[in-house]
Amino acid sequence: MRVLHLYCLNTGARFCRLLLAEGKLDVLLKLEHFWEAPESFLVLNPAGTVPVMVEDDGTVLVGTWPIIEYLHDTQPELALLPGDPAQKAEARRLADWFAVKFEREVIAPLINEKLLRRLTGDGVPSSAVIRAALGNLSAHLEYINHLAEHRKWLAGSKLSIADLYAAAALSVVDYLGDVHWQDWPEAKTWYSRIKSRPSFRALLTDNVTGLMPPAHYTDLDF
Amino acid sequence: MRVLHLYCLNTGARFCRLLLAEGKLDVLLKLEHFWEAPESFLVLNPAGTVPVMVEDDGTVLVGTWPIIEYLHDTQPELALLPGDPAQKAEARRLADWFAVKFEREVIAPLINEKLLRRLTGDGVPSSAVIRAALGNLSAHLEYINHLAEHRKWLAGSKLSIADLYAAAALSVVDYLGDVHWQDWPEAKTWYSRIKSRPSFRALLTDNVTGLMPPAHYTDLDF
Repeated sequence: MRVLHLYCLNTGARFCRLLLAEGKLDVLLKLEHFWEAPESFLVLNPAGTVPVMVEDDGTVLVGTWPIIEYLHDTQPELALLPGDPAQKAEARRLADWFAVKFEREVIAPLINEKLLRRLTGDGVPSSAVIRAALGNLSAHLEYINHLAEHRKWLAGSKLSIADLYAAAALSVVDYLGDVHWQDWPEAKTWYSRIKSRPSFRALLTDNVTGLMPPAHYTDLDF
Repeated sequence: MRVLHLYCLNTGARFCRLLLAEGKLDVLLKLEHFWEAPESFLVLNPAGTVPVMVEDDGTVLVGTWPIIEYLHDTQPELALLPGDPAQKAEARRLADWFAVKFEREVIAPLINEKLLRRLTGDGVPSSAVIRAALGNLSAHLEYINHLAEHRKWLAGSKLSIADLYAAAALSVVDYLGDVHWQDWPEAKTWYSRIKSRPSFRALLTDNVTGLMPPAHYTDLDF
């Protein structure tokens, strides 16, 4: 069976789980402590990053862009890149926004300061770095709120990889207790629609040892 | 005509120029001082990053992943994603490696310390940051050298987006004078093949005011 190598608070891995669940595609999950760079994992991906997906026939897919496009090439019924080339480009633009910009400005610093420092024993969390990341988060939430106010789904009239990627990213920050949903009503309504989908359920039950999410995290009526 | 908004030492923009030139697709170039975040540019891309490509019909394409896949969708004769889905995935994996990992570990710190600090008047270059980036560069060159030793082109037997992206990235570092080619003979042979292609010529004549490349930069027999 297809295997997805992941870490539970990794946005790309969460996105891939949503994508596969939306397509009702079976997958086995394999947890990787990627920060320890185990040799068995580096053979699959010399970059040492998750997600990595290994297909039944042994094809190794590294990173979310290759995974998205491979599924698009081989599972056309998945249809999470809807519409004409320009509409596809808009969905890809927003997925890329969350994969690169949101990751760099929000997720990477928060996960590094709040989780990885403890796991690796590398110093104490920097409140200045956390404060800057939370400032960036507000700017991103304002943009999501704006998109959700003007469009049914983030990239247009249909659910797409843009919604799944953005929701995967926000779910990580929400796990850390850092989203003040009451300040972003349109973003909250959009997120609650995604959060209620069957594909989202398994994500919400994953926990990291020693780091519990806030009470509202699993609540569909948050 | 198609317009590409770029900055000359931006890897993604260099890659797009190579891609368009390989496909003999016409394009007008528009230089953007993206670090000044001009309003006219933020309307096209609220993320404020280059490259952005605007098609004849007004379709706006933001970022290299959307640009690659849009051209793949609309210009199938371009053929820079050759082969079956697994081979395409390998080309995408390596393009993504240079777009994200190489960018974060090598290009962004070098460009920030050596160029942007001067342009924006933000402090003096940090020799510690430059040293770390050059250490990372060696690890990447070792990987390119390894790939070039075992494959005709980086992703397999055919020229692909992986070669163009990697060469675009190395051309930026080479402009800064930071590649010691004699240490990486296989990488050098591969790069000299790409550098000799007609598509590469225009890149080599671009200069940044006040920052000249080393003499070997434009030399095809370097």
